Amino acid sequence: MSYRMVGYLLGVILLIEAALMTVPMLTALLYGESLLPFFFTILILLVFSIPALFLKPKESRFYAKDGMICVAGSWILLSAFGALPFVFSGAIPSYVDAFFETVSGFTTTGATILTEIESLPKGILFWRSFTHWIGGMGVLVFMLALLPSAGGQSIHLLRAETTGPQKGKLVPKMKQSAMILYAIYFALTALQTVLLLCTGMPVYDSLVTAFGTAGTGGFSVLNDSIAGYNNPAAEWIIAVFMVIFGVNFNLYFFLLLKRFKEVLKNEELRVYLLICTVATAVIAWNVWDTFFSAEGCIRTAFFQVASIISTTGFATVNYDLWPDLAKTVILCLMIVGSCAGSTAGGLKVSRVILMFKNIGRELKHLVRPNSINTVRMDGEAVPTETQRRVANYMSIYLALIAISVLLISFEGFGFETHFTSVLTCINNVGPGLAKVGPAGNFADFSVFSKLLLSLNMLIGRLEILPILIFFTPKVWKKA
Amino acid sequence: MSYRMVGYLLGVILLIEAALMTVPMLTALLYGESLLPFFFTILILLVFSIPALFLKPKESRFYAKDGMICVAGSWILLSAFGALPFVFSGAIPSYVDAFFETVSGFTTTGATILTEIESLPKGILFWRSFTHWIGGMGVLVFMLALLPSAGGQSIHLLRAETTGPQKGKLVPKMKQSAMILYAIYFALTALQTVLLLCTGMPVYDSLVTAFGTAGTGGFSVLNDSIAGYNNPAAEWIIAVFMVIFGVNFNLYFFLLLKRFKEVLKNEELRVYLLICTVATAVIAWNVWDTFFSAEGCIRTAFFQVASIISTTGFATVNYDLWPDLAKTVILCLMIVGSCAGSTAGGLKVSRVILMFKNIGRELKHLVRPNSINTVRMDGEAVPTETQRRVANYMSIYLALIAISVLLISFEGFGFETHFTSVLTCINNVGPGLAKVGPAGNFADFSVFSKLLLSLNMLIGRLEILPILIFFTPKVWKKA
Repeated sequence: MSYRMVGYLLGVILLIEAALMTVPMLTALLYGESLLPFFFTILILLVFSIPALFLKPKESRFYAKDGMICVAGSWILLSAFGALPFVFSGAIPSYVDAFFETVSGFTTTGATILTEIESLPKGILFWRSFTHWIGGMGVLVFMLALLPSAGGQSIHLLRAETTGPQKGKLVPKMKQSAMILYAIYFALTALQTVLLLCTGMPVYDSLVTAFGTAGTGGFSVLNDSIAGYNNPAAEWIIAVFMVIFGVNFNLYFFLLLKRFKEVLKNEELRVYLLICTVATAVIAWNVWDTFFSAEGCIRTAFFQVASIISTTGFATVNYDLWPDLAKTVILCLMIVGSCAGSTAGGLKVSRVILMFKNIGRELKHLVRPNSINTVRMDGEAVPTETQRRVANYMSIYLALIAISVLLISFEGFGFETHFTSVLTCINNVGPGLAKVGPAGNFADFSVFSKLLLSLNMLIGRLEILPILIFFTPKVWKKA
Repeated sequence: MSYRMVGYLLGVILLIEAALMTVPMLTALLYGESLLPFFFTILILLVFSIPALFLKPKESRFYAKDGMICVAGSWILLSAFGALPFVFSGAIPSYVDAFFETVSGFTTTGATILTEIESLPKGILFWRSFTHWIGGMGVLVFMLALLPSAGGQSIHLLRAETTGPQKGKLVPKMKQSAMILYAIYFALTALQTVLLLCTGMPVYDSLVTAFGTAGTGGFSVLNDSIAGYNNPAAEWIIAVFMVIFGVNFNLYFFLLLKRFKEVLKNEELRVYLLICTVATAVIAWNVWDTFFSAEGCIRTAFFQVASIISTTGFATVNYDLWPDLAKTVILCLMIVGSCAGSTAGGLKVSRVILMFKNIGRELKHLVRPNSINTVRMDGEAVPTETQRRVANYMSIYLALIAISVLLISFEGFGFETHFTSVLTCINNVGPGLAKVGPAGNFADFSVFSKLLLSLNMLIGRLEILPILIFFTPKVWKKA
């Protein structure tokens, strides 16, 4: 492994975090709150990051596994340092709680240990929501957009951090790919903020809500989440934007290039929108009786579907009180998640499509052993290597969930809570069912469980392998 | 597809069922109960099976898919006709309920819709337990043992009905393989019956309990299952035999041939026994406080572990009242199941081992992309084809569970009941948690759910593909 290179890149990442932390510090200044929590954190970040910059090697070979280690290390360090303002400000006195909250922020999960949110300082809550926005598009992609085009490491970093079974770049130059993605991300976030302002939502709330939506995170600054605004127009806007941020960002780039055909023909997008529509219809039908108006019912059903499939986790209703069918649909959406290359979590729609196509091929092969059955996606043959990886991904995913549920059941909160807390964390959703439902939180879990769930969130956000590689002792040995 | 051949084989199977039904009829005679329910069923079976025997083709090509269709068709028909005595006797007035109970019997699940068992006729209960014994080793394997060695169809039938990721025959001749398996099965069942008799259990109870154990089924003739006997010695014997029947039968054949080394080196057996030991220790530790004696605690923990991992489902305690950790261990055991080539259900230990080895290989490949990593099992390289099939099996398994839980949640019995009812049926265990826990039953489910769960049981017992193939319309078209 290239220790110097990894060390250098981690230094750059921490320096970026220090720079980004000036934004919530300015917010605190604006609201006349204490700047010290951010100031001290920035100081600590500089102490660690500046020496690391001297590690920069002149020339270095950088392998795929180095990319994984680098990405996993970055996310862990970002969260470890990003937790400090919460502790320093006294908003979250326990470091483990603050770490959980920060991992939940960066991984765009939105699971919280806070029981009372509205009384916290504005600057701290800004930082909490800002972590969603930073984590959404990937902090290393951000770095790539900033740094002068480096050598071979860029593609490994991009691959390790972006999501989905098939990963490519938009344009030949990595730096430009990253810049295009961030530009789209920025523009969409700005558009949503403006639209929310138009509904009469305050500036601060519009901005942090847009951060939570864009990163498909789900932290809100109100105790009752989006329901607290009592603003149907804002609910519609947020719901639509949650769906938008669940779409592969490459498609928006194609839209800019007027390659409409490719967008329309995109199988993942079609299935994603189909699932959204069907799930909304089923839930609306299932909860019809509990609403006074059709608009309210459809809006609430659509909002919840958008919130869960995009793995955001905003709430306008406590769906834990819904009938079993609606709740099970919610659970299924959690697992499926959104499109590859979006800011969302979950298995990703394309993986689910490939899984079903694989199953179909397996059956066809049995019926006609001599026929050649190619799995196609968007008209192109999917390499066997990708199919194998998708199938293995399912196995690892299943195994990790089983092991995590087993370990977390020491808590004794009941199977539904244990199962859905793991599910919601590994899929980066936020709320689950029962004790961790939209009206609940993760405050009562033990230190062990909070760390385990943090690990689940990181595993889910980085799609398993980087984190597993990071914790494989063999990788750390000198070659 | 070879319609004549499949029709002929189905006829033979129904004829065998008619023959086997004389056993419970004799039991009814012995206890002075009405013979008519069995008599009429046998008559109906003969009416359908005898004409089918004339379909026998002189020469026929028989493909793998024909084997699948034949096996799936057999199991469905066996259950459809096997349900009749329950209806005719009035023991289970509803046909759907009787069908569910019979599928549960043949697939060795042991899930029941009966709320009161002890008042039913002895002959009927004998048939109920006998279906476990018939289904355990596979009814087509039985047919193969009986029939003169046919041509190419035997291997396809054996493959479609036996369990596990890698299927082979013991000796070059299929008929002999089948006979050896049935001889071992018969001998072990007899041994268990004798041992149970020694503990003072009545003859009838010893026999039906041995049927339930050998098939890893779990139907008992007492309302309180094995707890009703209050017989610790019998509990130990049953527990040990449940573990024994969860072992690959090929290993017993190797024991007979004194190939001890192969048995000792068998990875699946080692992992299976390790899981049994660890799970027993964890559960015993977790429920220690609720017992008066160490022996009672260990016996109960071991019995439950053996019962669930072997997917039998006998109960000596209502584990639904246990702490969450113990309950989650139970759920994990349900999914893992026992060894391939045993009478048990679940994913099978060897599939789980291969899954973890696949994951390890995936990681190794990432760390060192150029190294060649072969997955080995019992020292031999596992073909990539097998690995692919195992990975795909996981995907199909996951998808089927998700779809089934979604459909069953119309019931509104709560997530824990829905999830574990699907899990216990697809893994052929019997009891689940909450409403379908050891003290509960499946009586309150709707007709739709009962049929869906029956399908799950068949899918689980035949390891998914035969049933999926059976319901693929394309297969039924004339070539």
